[in-house]
Amino acid sequence: MAANEFSEKHRIVYYEADDTDQLTLAKLIDLFVLVSEDQNADLGITTEKIQSLGVGWVVTQYHIQIDQLPRTGETVTVKTRATAYNRYFAYREYWLLDATGKQLAYGEGIWVTMSYETRKIATIPAAIMAPYHSDPVTRLPRLPRPDRDDATATSRVKPYTVRYFDIDHNGHVNNAHYFDWMLDTLPAEFLRHHHATDVRIRFENEVKYGQQVTSAVTQPELTTTQHVVSFGTTTAVRATVQWTD
Amino acid sequence: MAANEFSEKHRIVYYEADDTDQLTLAKLIDLFVLVSEDQNADLGITTEKIQSLGVGWVVTQYHIQIDQLPRTGETVTVKTRATAYNRYFAYREYWLLDATGKQLAYGEGIWVTMSYETRKIATIPAAIMAPYHSDPVTRLPRLPRPDRDDATATSRVKPYTVRYFDIDHNGHVNNAHYFDWMLDTLPAEFLRHHHATDVRIRFENEVKYGQQVTSAVTQPELTTTQHVVSFGTTTAVRATVQWTD
Repeated sequence: MAANEFSEKHRIVYYEADDTDQLTLAKLIDLFVLVSEDQNADLGITTEKIQSLGVGWVVTQYHIQIDQLPRTGETVTVKTRATAYNRYFAYREYWLLDATGKQLAYGEGIWVTMSYETRKIATIPAAIMAPYHSDPVTRLPRLPRPDRDDATATSRVKPYTVRYFDIDHNGHVNNAHYFDWMLDTLPAEFLRHHHATDVRIRFENEVKYGQQVTSAVTQPELTTTQHVVSFGTTTAVRATVQWTD
Repeated sequence: MAANEFSEKHRIVYYEADDTDQLTLAKLIDLFVLVSEDQNADLGITTEKIQSLGVGWVVTQYHIQIDQLPRTGETVTVKTRATAYNRYFAYREYWLLDATGKQLAYGEGIWVTMSYETRKIATIPAAIMAPYHSDPVTRLPRLPRPDRDDATATSRVKPYTVRYFDIDHNGHVNNAHYFDWMLDTLPAEFLRHHHATDVRIRFENEVKYGQQVTSAVTQPELTTTQHVVSFGTTTAVRATVQWTD
């Protein structure tokens, strides 16, 4: 039996877009999480219910392929399916569609349940997976990883301090907020005139309120940016973004 | 004839709320601007049409009184009316209502048209005011100003650099983003356990991409915070916020 799909409409408003009226990558991630949470709630698996088991859903990796990001005022459909899972990982797919049903973006995400006690990955409680009719599998699809760093490349580095409003229910920096730091290392003129077409991102270690992080970017090619967000010697996030003009 | 009212419903989603599930002040401002822009568009006065006259709408001052901020998942009604205007200033009122029609917040804003050429206040073009049936008046209501600084008070100061995603259509820091800097000077524990009840804020000078600002806060009483955002010797924003626990 195929996994349940869930979709909802969303109007892109100006504060979800940049100054060219295009949905930001951070808000694209927010929409993916929103449709996941709305599906969870629709199936009776609310955030409160999951937290009562001592765990919270956390995304460890995304691969996103983008044809075109929607613009302020557009009403899009965001669709998701919790396609497959095993003991530790759940594989979700996402589609962003325009008003005519044309695909604007496709995303894959790997979700895990993090124990609030140990802050480590916990076995996914069987009860919370049942309503999705996801396929229990041994091997999940593997998402392509960010590129390895070229240690000889020159990087641009900026420091940031985690703000209260960066923190989410899980008590750490919300995944979408890493994009604020990652993309802020690129000049406004680059961001205004380039569009992301492919994003591979891994969230390796959580970052907490008040911590200082550095966001480093290298650009091995004009249309490829390689990002590392770290604190001390620990890597928090690693990502590779492909761009087109 | 009374000025036209305009209202719309909005579902508060998790990325518009803080980690206590409460709508943030920044997003409350975003909702006020959203309903203003949606009324403008509804009356045929789109942002493009206004910009074609060489000006953009900018808010110079708000006074907001808050009973209670809505929570993630709530559907609220945001209502506005362009109540009155004169040659240079337009006075707008805002209401945020819960699903039963109970008032959650009331806001007043002073809007001006800024010339893109001179970056200064310009006469409001008569053509763009006509559809609102606002009252042309000589004297507009005066909004209460933020308190004067107590020069002897000890302030906490944090530095920030303007990011690309802080910038809006008018080519400067979006008003809502000042709240990120202003409130980030307060400890998370204070923000988590206090609710803003009254906000008086004046936007005095615009801030541009890449500029360095400092955000300073003094707390003359436990339930009053006094904020100044500045660059060099220039004040960008001044605000007084009253809180309750």
